[in-house]
Amino acid sequence: MNIFGEIIHDRRSVRDFEERAVPLSVIKEIIADACEAPSAGNRQPWGFVVIVDRDMMKRLSDESKTRLLEDESVIRSPLLRMYRGILKDEQHNVFYNAPCLVYITGPKRFHSTSADCSLAASYFMISAALRGLGTCWVDLGSYIRDPGLLEEIGVPDNHRIIAPVIMGYPKNIPERPQRKEPRIFKIIG
Amino acid sequence: MNIFGEIIHDRRSVRDFEERAVPLSVIKEIIADACEAPSAGNRQPWGFVVIVDRDMMKRLSDESKTRLLEDESVIRSPLLRMYRGILKDEQHNVFYNAPCLVYITGPKRFHSTSADCSLAASYFMISAALRGLGTCWVDLGSYIRDPGLLEEIGVPDNHRIIAPVIMGYPKNIPERPQRKEPRIFKIIG
Repeated sequence: MNIFGEIIHDRRSVRDFEERAVPLSVIKEIIADACEAPSAGNRQPWGFVVIVDRDMMKRLSDESKTRLLEDESVIRSPLLRMYRGILKDEQHNVFYNAPCLVYITGPKRFHSTSADCSLAASYFMISAALRGLGTCWVDLGSYIRDPGLLEEIGVPDNHRIIAPVIMGYPKNIPERPQRKEPRIFKIIG
Repeated sequence: MNIFGEIIHDRRSVRDFEERAVPLSVIKEIIADACEAPSAGNRQPWGFVVIVDRDMMKRLSDESKTRLLEDESVIRSPLLRMYRGILKDEQHNVFYNAPCLVYITGPKRFHSTSADCSLAASYFMISAALRGLGTCWVDLGSYIRDPGLLEEIGVPDNHRIIAPVIMGYPKNIPERPQRKEPRIFKIIG
């Protein structure tokens, strides 16, 4: 239909990136686009942490994997359970070789934080795709619990991490995965 | 930058609609676009309920308002507390005069349901905007608890409502609300 129709059809979650860095000016443009998302009561409650330091990314990956393996919800979640092998592999970095990681955070006490920050993440990922950048929402990288580490990366006490999004210039773009037919349970009227 | 940049800048949450119906074929196209959203583990867990019957919308509005007023979380949430006047007003329909309401639902037991369905809602609302349609995510309309009513509208037992999105041709489009400067807590690297 138009460039949005194309971009949403063609955008893939990317996990394999070129070495080159994403310019900070571009990261900031994409964050500005993310802030155009709607939010409950127009509170725009999101905050951002930008990490382009690979050592820090590795530390965050290790922390998140450790916490996930301690977390009983992993046992209850079929999807997280599926990832247990990866979580136990010390070599595996959940952020892959991405040159950039952006954490989208929101207030712990807002009931709408998950929805608001997910909408912002969606705008972020589409904006990145339109700039030739690949992204992937890496849920496995969100389980940062160490207060010292959270402070070090600048997440305020009253915020929690909703969306860890890796970003970079794609080296490999996966094939379009199989799509289910839309499930419309009922049409009333 | 391009049509996405324009649409995300210009899209407003719309709560005042023309009388005319949205063709079902258009609703289905928008739902198909929503299903292009990424999801955790590519599970595409979303389902949709389309309601174009205004009596049913009124019943759903009444049920949601009643449940919200019973709900202790309303007391804890400053935003929901702000809406208590509206919730107590019997004449107020939380779906306004929208000719169409779409519930986006997801599995209760998936830890990613809120994020997945929010991403789908984002794609849904942008796709609608590109077709000249107004939308608004009406959180106040999501609190449907009556099992009989949930069954009547086709929400399966194992699903919960994440995003109630009203849609129609805009009669009035609000001014762009004030935007905060993006809050980048820290740049590391």
